[in-house]
Amino acid sequence: MSNNKKYPVFFISDRTGITSETLGRTLLTQFTSIGFERINLPFINSVEKTRGAVERINQAATASNLSPLVFSTLIDDECKTILSESRGEVIDFFAAFIQPLEEILGRESSHTTGLSHGISDDTKYMNRIDAVNFTLSNDDGVSTKHYPSADVLIVGASRSGKTPTCLNLALQYGLRAANYPLDADDILNGSLPELLSPYRDKMFGLTIQPERLQRIREKRRPGSSYASLKQCQKDVRTVEALFHHEDIPYLDTSQVSIEEICTTIMEKMALKRRSIN
Amino acid sequence: MSNNKKYPVFFISDRTGITSETLGRTLLTQFTSIGFERINLPFINSVEKTRGAVERINQAATASNLSPLVFSTLIDDECKTILSESRGEVIDFFAAFIQPLEEILGRESSHTTGLSHGISDDTKYMNRIDAVNFTLSNDDGVSTKHYPSADVLIVGASRSGKTPTCLNLALQYGLRAANYPLDADDILNGSLPELLSPYRDKMFGLTIQPERLQRIREKRRPGSSYASLKQCQKDVRTVEALFHHEDIPYLDTSQVSIEEICTTIMEKMALKRRSIN
Repeated sequence: MSNNKKYPVFFISDRTGITSETLGRTLLTQFTSIGFERINLPFINSVEKTRGAVERINQAATASNLSPLVFSTLIDDECKTILSESRGEVIDFFAAFIQPLEEILGRESSHTTGLSHGISDDTKYMNRIDAVNFTLSNDDGVSTKHYPSADVLIVGASRSGKTPTCLNLALQYGLRAANYPLDADDILNGSLPELLSPYRDKMFGLTIQPERLQRIREKRRPGSSYASLKQCQKDVRTVEALFHHEDIPYLDTSQVSIEEICTTIMEKMALKRRSIN
Repeated sequence: MSNNKKYPVFFISDRTGITSETLGRTLLTQFTSIGFERINLPFINSVEKTRGAVERINQAATASNLSPLVFSTLIDDECKTILSESRGEVIDFFAAFIQPLEEILGRESSHTTGLSHGISDDTKYMNRIDAVNFTLSNDDGVSTKHYPSADVLIVGASRSGKTPTCLNLALQYGLRAANYPLDADDILNGSLPELLSPYRDKMFGLTIQPERLQRIREKRRPGSSYASLKQCQKDVRTVEALFHHEDIPYLDTSQVSIEEICTTIMEKMALKRRSIN
């Protein structure tokens, strides 16, 4: 293939496609020199829909003159057969692993579709909703009164990534994640503001490179002193000194994704996820 | 194995472990009769940490008298060798697929670690943060003034799942998702409130079974008329009639997870994800 042509990649699933997409995207990161065009085909749960998917794959094959990659988590045998007759190269997630797993576990698999991202019971859904509600009503230090029931309290300078981190902890792990913004003026003698000190054991700090913080704040409030490099440097320096002084575990978020921040927090704070679906 | 013993399962990764966890969990849904104990070991990115992981696997093997399942996305050859000498049964995601992919694509893989959930550039991070900020400031119908720049506007009865859906659309797909709560009193003659009518083409509706809505509202405001089955039935009936009358696509969220709601919305509204990392 030439370098300027996009390689067509399909993610096919009988349900949300999240598993096939996760697998496919991870594998494709190992082929950085190729440009891929990604097409997600979720809810392929009938023979008719599978035929429709095959048609799209074959069209992409004709248009690109390539054999499209097809990451599949289909379970139904008839659908799988139809898919295998497309002009794509099918990477069958279950075929590769189910049989070895059956041997290791000494059990047959249940061969049922779409169990991974479905909903199982009310309680688990409520765990998730409760966590999201808690996180929304304890965003940005609006009040400390619910902190006793928080699983974790994220602290850091304004715009260091606290809110998306907390929302992701709530949505993906069912955790009640509060956050409190620290700025240089709150911190006297390098110590925690008094209203926060009872919660030190729940605290995890976020920090960030001042230059990156400046770019983020600048988008929020262009030209403000709040967004100036000087203010960002001061806030970061003061907050980091506080983390050291109070022995609060922390992470520099400048080069890491929200997923990595959350995984790090889970690990360092020894947090357990709640069942969410 | 006996039925009351938990089967130990490890998810091992050099980075967040999200890929190995997602894939492993999906595979395990095919073995519903077995109880699993899941242990996530992220950031296994050195020989030393791999040895630590092997120790934990071997301890679990001794304690359970079983061979623990080990889902791995490790890339580094030395670490993989060490892991393979544990008492666990290693399911190696990359080994299964990288070679076939190399053949199909006619390229060697780059053999680099942890590219999937890392951060690549500022722009993508900003897409995500912008989407989260937009979604937070356009939650629950606080104002309609930013609706012209929304990617999607989620409408439905109070507590039908709009907020977690919007937050997940923002965090996972980088979409600017606003939401507006509809209750029976807002809806005259089965028509959209006037302030919403310019945005009909961006609208997606959520509905829910009244009994389930009652349980959710009851947790929020116990014993209120808002949470009564009668009010829930009225709200749901009126909102569904509106969706039909105004031809707004919608989904009953009672039996589906937030992931499925989001995937359905993406598909029905033909939305494209933004790059978020």
